[in-house]
Amino acid sequence: MEKETKADEEEQTQVINPWEVSAKGKIDYDKLIDQFGCQRLDQSFVDRVHRLTNRIPHIFLRRNVFFAHRDLNEILDAYERGEKFYLYTGRGPSSEALHLGHLVPFMFTKYLQEAFKVPLVIQLTDDEKCMWKNLTVEESKRLARENAKDIIACGFDVSRTFIFSDFDYVGGAFYENMVKVAKCVTYNKVVGIFGFTGEDHIGKISFPPVQAVPSFPSSFPHLFSGKDKLRCLIPCAIDQDPYFRMTRDVAPRLGYSKPALIESLFFPALQGQTGKMSASDANSAIYVTDSQKAIKEKVNRYAFSGGQDSIENHRKYGANLEVDIPFKYLSFFLEDDEELEHIRKEYGSGRMLTGEVKKRLIEVLTEIVERHRAARAAVTDEMVDAFMAVRPLPNMFA
Amino acid sequence: MEKETKADEEEQTQVINPWEVSAKGKIDYDKLIDQFGCQRLDQSFVDRVHRLTNRIPHIFLRRNVFFAHRDLNEILDAYERGEKFYLYTGRGPSSEALHLGHLVPFMFTKYLQEAFKVPLVIQLTDDEKCMWKNLTVEESKRLARENAKDIIACGFDVSRTFIFSDFDYVGGAFYENMVKVAKCVTYNKVVGIFGFTGEDHIGKISFPPVQAVPSFPSSFPHLFSGKDKLRCLIPCAIDQDPYFRMTRDVAPRLGYSKPALIESLFFPALQGQTGKMSASDANSAIYVTDSQKAIKEKVNRYAFSGGQDSIENHRKYGANLEVDIPFKYLSFFLEDDEELEHIRKEYGSGRMLTGEVKKRLIEVLTEIVERHRAARAAVTDEMVDAFMAVRPLPNMFA
Repeated sequence: MEKETKADEEEQTQVINPWEVSAKGKIDYDKLIDQFGCQRLDQSFVDRVHRLTNRIPHIFLRRNVFFAHRDLNEILDAYERGEKFYLYTGRGPSSEALHLGHLVPFMFTKYLQEAFKVPLVIQLTDDEKCMWKNLTVEESKRLARENAKDIIACGFDVSRTFIFSDFDYVGGAFYENMVKVAKCVTYNKVVGIFGFTGEDHIGKISFPPVQAVPSFPSSFPHLFSGKDKLRCLIPCAIDQDPYFRMTRDVAPRLGYSKPALIESLFFPALQGQTGKMSASDANSAIYVTDSQKAIKEKVNRYAFSGGQDSIENHRKYGANLEVDIPFKYLSFFLEDDEELEHIRKEYGSGRMLTGEVKKRLIEVLTEIVERHRAARAAVTDEMVDAFMAVRPLPNMFA
Repeated sequence: MEKETKADEEEQTQVINPWEVSAKGKIDYDKLIDQFGCQRLDQSFVDRVHRLTNRIPHIFLRRNVFFAHRDLNEILDAYERGEKFYLYTGRGPSSEALHLGHLVPFMFTKYLQEAFKVPLVIQLTDDEKCMWKNLTVEESKRLARENAKDIIACGFDVSRTFIFSDFDYVGGAFYENMVKVAKCVTYNKVVGIFGFTGEDHIGKISFPPVQAVPSFPSSFPHLFSGKDKLRCLIPCAIDQDPYFRMTRDVAPRLGYSKPALIESLFFPALQGQTGKMSASDANSAIYVTDSQKAIKEKVNRYAFSGGQDSIENHRKYGANLEVDIPFKYLSFFLEDDEELEHIRKEYGSGRMLTGEVKKRLIEVLTEIVERHRAARAAVTDEMVDAFMAVRPLPNMFA
């Protein structure tokens, strides 16, 4: 296990695991990288991706939203040699409507798929949400299919993408790999990684192998038969790292390659960046179903401002961009690097007011949400069936 | 949990669980019934089965080999009202060749299927054996298929029988039920029932739901769609009781019926009845692949005798039938009740010698093994495919 004990010993001033993200104050991402034992994704990677793909790197790369990685260098080395890889990401379908934070990994994965022309598997962990959120099997499956529509709306290429729900797909080669992984991981080990207790149900203890095995091409015989050495790259938020630390630990014992990772910051809540946005507090997040009016109201009313308490002080001291949510959101979503730089200077120096920045943010978010809504409305049941069909991908490495 | 704590508190002079059967001296089945909280199967049940099925009860019922039950009365009540049920039994495919102890539940289940004209599902837990015996997935699957041939050779009706391997069949509705069961059972609970420790791998902790869910008709939509209230009767050796105590505990919380059980003694080792026969000691058991010569040698050389140490003492005191393995084996397999009674008297009083009893046993075992071998040789791959096909059973309740 890569530096796992370090994470265990560290005093827990911030708790980051797949089910909880909380910190006293701001999340310390440097500390997290150190605890988890992953690497910082520095500018040389961004430049290399630029060179290899011959296109401007995605805004989430340029802005360091994806800020950490494991073995990304190996993936890029292999790609440079002419070898392909595949992408794996996923979602736990616990709610009907996605918020913008949920879209971050999918927007980025869509870019990676396009830029590298590689196949992608997307896991919908309806079994996980059934167990953790105490949803019925039927409701979890329904949410998985609804969420698939939002994912498809991000623009994935159906000829290179397989979306699956665990309740539908677990079995066969996938289940065989689950058993192989489970054999390599003791109860004490998952307690160390995930913090389970004896009063947790055995469904939770059984779950980590389910999220682990999409990292191995042999879990998808209809896609990767005979391609057992194909490397896997996982774009995800960094709270998912524990699953893949476990997976990487086990992989060599099964004769499999370790999956590589590229990991993002959390998209902060409107109220401030102490954690991820929460699906349970509707006012903490912008949803893809929010109307223009709702977006305007949420941003104006709830977005935590780093501006000063009076115009005089603001003109004098400028906004604190470290804690300012409107600026933070713009850094995620405002494509124009020059405009963002302009806002950084003007707002940071106090020449621009919070109201102006919020106005610009409302425009940017409204456009994204409107675009998503239109795209989602165009997703038919037949399209969902096509993405979820267990069949070879026609365009996999073309 | 039915009287589970009693079993936990009891001082462990005998250890009986699905992976270990050991006792200091003879197994105390009365104590086991008390510990597990099942019921003794008394003569009134045997008579009732006789009446309901209109045929002589199976030798294993007449001789009290199946000696304990849970809710068998309810199954018979329902049957008397004209309601059907289904049978569920299984095997962990850990070895190539079965011994006679392995055949006991299948011989009995075949009788139940014939007598009650009910469908039957047979689970081959290749996943379990892969995890417990450290077999590869491929070897476990191969053994499952080989063992299926021995099971089919017992004479099951293909129009009423579905045989499945977990590696093949886990998924869909079956996996949904696994998740539902897992949600209801804590780690502490499985530690209490099965004795797992923190150093056990999570595959073991994940497994009990896999063996639980064939108890629920909704795990087999291709067989029992729309028959969610169909009761299940499980013939098995009593060491499997912990799985089904857990299952019965969980069933009502899922809106399912509790499975009923009919449970057998262990078939003793040639060396004496302190436990089950062991697949790892070839001389402790008669295998269905043993030649007539091997059977003769094993019985003569290894079968523990309750006869006295000299002919004089034997004539004087008679054989101790309580510990005599040749007599015990005859009580499992010698169909003729009168002949067995004759041997009991003559051997027990010392008029008959161990050699004579062993000679008769060799005849009886040779006939069973020869018959099995011929039947197994006639089992084709097409027959295995037919029994393992996921399709409706043509003759299910006919």
